[in-house]
Amino acid sequence: MQTLWDYRYAQRTQRMKGSAIRELLKFSERKDIISFAGGLPAPEVFPIDKFREGCDKALREHGAECLQYGSTDGYLPLREMIAYYATRYGMNVTADNILPTSGSQQALDLIGRIFINPGDRILVESPTYLGALQAWVAYGAEFISVPFDKDGMVTDKLENLLRAGIKFIYVLPNFQNPTGLTLSYERRLHLIELADKYGIPIIEDDPYGQLRYEGEHLPAVIVLDSQTRSQDICYSGNVIYLSTFSKTLAPGIRLAWVIAPPEVIQKLILAKQGADLHTSTFNQITAHEVAKDGFLYEHVKLIRKVYRERRDVMLDSLEEHMPSGITWSHPKGGLFLWTTLPTNLDAKVIFKDAIKKSVAFVPGAVFFAEGGGHNTMRLNFSNAKPEMISEGISRLSEVVKNHIMKK
Amino acid sequence: MQTLWDYRYAQRTQRMKGSAIRELLKFSERKDIISFAGGLPAPEVFPIDKFREGCDKALREHGAECLQYGSTDGYLPLREMIAYYATRYGMNVTADNILPTSGSQQALDLIGRIFINPGDRILVESPTYLGALQAWVAYGAEFISVPFDKDGMVTDKLENLLRAGIKFIYVLPNFQNPTGLTLSYERRLHLIELADKYGIPIIEDDPYGQLRYEGEHLPAVIVLDSQTRSQDICYSGNVIYLSTFSKTLAPGIRLAWVIAPPEVIQKLILAKQGADLHTSTFNQITAHEVAKDGFLYEHVKLIRKVYRERRDVMLDSLEEHMPSGITWSHPKGGLFLWTTLPTNLDAKVIFKDAIKKSVAFVPGAVFFAEGGGHNTMRLNFSNAKPEMISEGISRLSEVVKNHIMKK
Repeated sequence: MQTLWDYRYAQRTQRMKGSAIRELLKFSERKDIISFAGGLPAPEVFPIDKFREGCDKALREHGAECLQYGSTDGYLPLREMIAYYATRYGMNVTADNILPTSGSQQALDLIGRIFINPGDRILVESPTYLGALQAWVAYGAEFISVPFDKDGMVTDKLENLLRAGIKFIYVLPNFQNPTGLTLSYERRLHLIELADKYGIPIIEDDPYGQLRYEGEHLPAVIVLDSQTRSQDICYSGNVIYLSTFSKTLAPGIRLAWVIAPPEVIQKLILAKQGADLHTSTFNQITAHEVAKDGFLYEHVKLIRKVYRERRDVMLDSLEEHMPSGITWSHPKGGLFLWTTLPTNLDAKVIFKDAIKKSVAFVPGAVFFAEGGGHNTMRLNFSNAKPEMISEGISRLSEVVKNHIMKK
Repeated sequence: MQTLWDYRYAQRTQRMKGSAIRELLKFSERKDIISFAGGLPAPEVFPIDKFREGCDKALREHGAECLQYGSTDGYLPLREMIAYYATRYGMNVTADNILPTSGSQQALDLIGRIFINPGDRILVESPTYLGALQAWVAYGAEFISVPFDKDGMVTDKLENLLRAGIKFIYVLPNFQNPTGLTLSYERRLHLIELADKYGIPIIEDDPYGQLRYEGEHLPAVIVLDSQTRSQDICYSGNVIYLSTFSKTLAPGIRLAWVIAPPEVIQKLILAKQGADLHTSTFNQITAHEVAKDGFLYEHVKLIRKVYRERRDVMLDSLEEHMPSGITWSHPKGGLFLWTTLPTNLDAKVIFKDAIKKSVAFVPGAVFFAEGGGHNTMRLNFSNAKPEMISEGISRLSEVVKNHIMKK
């Protein structure tokens, strides 16, 4: 039934669609379901006691500041701490390069807000992170996909696309959501070279960079970009870098940050003023109390240990149970693993049967901005406990086998 | 100096301006300044110990939920509590009418996002709340001003304007920011009648409604609107109502809410998914722990007592010190008082001299969407302590006297 409200909404509201993932997650919230569908951290590794300590200290020592309005540009000691940690990863940044945001989703939204005119083309990986597509479609973005393989975005295919007029390039270089795959060192350099040549900014989204379970850490794109420039203390290059506490401390505090040239930070601050005035001072001060003095560093080691085990259990279970003809990625970090079925199978159909067997995943098609991927599945390995992972993969394999036999 | 970034921003970014208030606040943050400029609650009334208890309980009893991702539609016990409190104020609402937001600023932003097409006309009071203008200008809104007097928006002037094609009406009925004035009962009814006749939604922004220091509580516009309709349990009328914990608990937790027909709530949820995924579960659960079981009710009594005293001190000091020819509003609640100077004085010029005497306010012109108000000042009485208020008003009066004598 049409109501009066339907005639009142803005045009952009017609473009907003409920996330397919969120719809699927509704199924997977059923208690009896083993879910590989979400992207949730393991609740077992949340540092709850440290948070109890941290927020009590924050309120005891900075009570009035915690509960009062704060400035849009964020809590200075937090920005300095983020700058300190970033410097350890090779970035030339100061607090002036950093804006705390209400989760990385807000960072994506603010980037859309300051950069995207309706019809602008954004270059994305294929597949890519759904939340970015959701954030930017509201501003009228159109998406151009770059092919993707086991070494990430295929940069050899980039140059032609960049000539076609691109507003910015969006890349998830480490243990990408949804595939779990990583952009190789050579391709990072190639990406920077091409972006610089055509004067096109890179948005580097790095929520999982610290969650590496094997192999050597690769320098962030923003680090490699700064190495091609004069070594200013305050970064002023071509890359806007996003990261978050959601995967290393807790997503429930909604605290992430942007690293960008100071002039871009200033525009983001203006946009954020209109969007939510500022990010909770209580959460910023608490997160600073929790993360400082090296706690973040130590805590991430625990997370790596727990997730590495879960990844290995999932890989072993796939090896043991999946029929031939199915392939999957071997992520060296992060939260996700990417599975490819024979092309005559449809992951959405399999999803429905999987739910009947009380196991859930995300059909991969939703991650493709320009279609495709009907025979792919994203599997999350961080949230379920090891014994549930092997049980869930065993059930899922049965469902897949049945579909293969039917064909 | 123009940089490459200047060519990259979206058109809407050109329309974003730093809030004049925020620039002024930079002055007024100087320790030696007595500031009537901000809109800050008194830190002395923050329930810091209650928050220490509340967040400790939240983390002990709901630790994993506090720190995990939550759903965009918000923490159900919080929504139920808000519905319960709203019901006590005469609203027919359930949790389905309620969306928690990251501060009221986000509610304004999301409303802009779902409703405003570039060029849409929004009807605002003259003067009105600056944060709303900032939020909606980013979506290309244009503003039409309705005259305003001591009884609020002059609804007799409304009908002609409504015929000119208005997207929605924005009204702050209680102790309005910036004037401190209140929309009369008769005008509330008139507003509802006209909005209904022309099918135009009303956005009712009510951050201060509970902070009444004298006189009888007036029913909210949404309450009066629902009385003109069949008495559904779940509100489905013409008004979207905003309120917040910022003035009754603490602004630092960034927690506010929208009350609207369920179908509008669903659109706002879609918009919020793209904007920040969800509001901090930690803050929602903590706020619920703090506010429940009647604490909010009791705490507001304390705030009323403290602010009433400060208002009275400010009124008395104005009476004592201000030269003749200056008038001011007598707000029955809220945080602000509105002062009008002789028309040959410019509040911006006076502001500069006031800063030299270490006292600050906001020149009123910034609150007018279509210009005017050069000779007005907004004075906040909630943040400074009583002795500082009399001292500050004494200084400000001296500055004003000097300007009058120069003319």
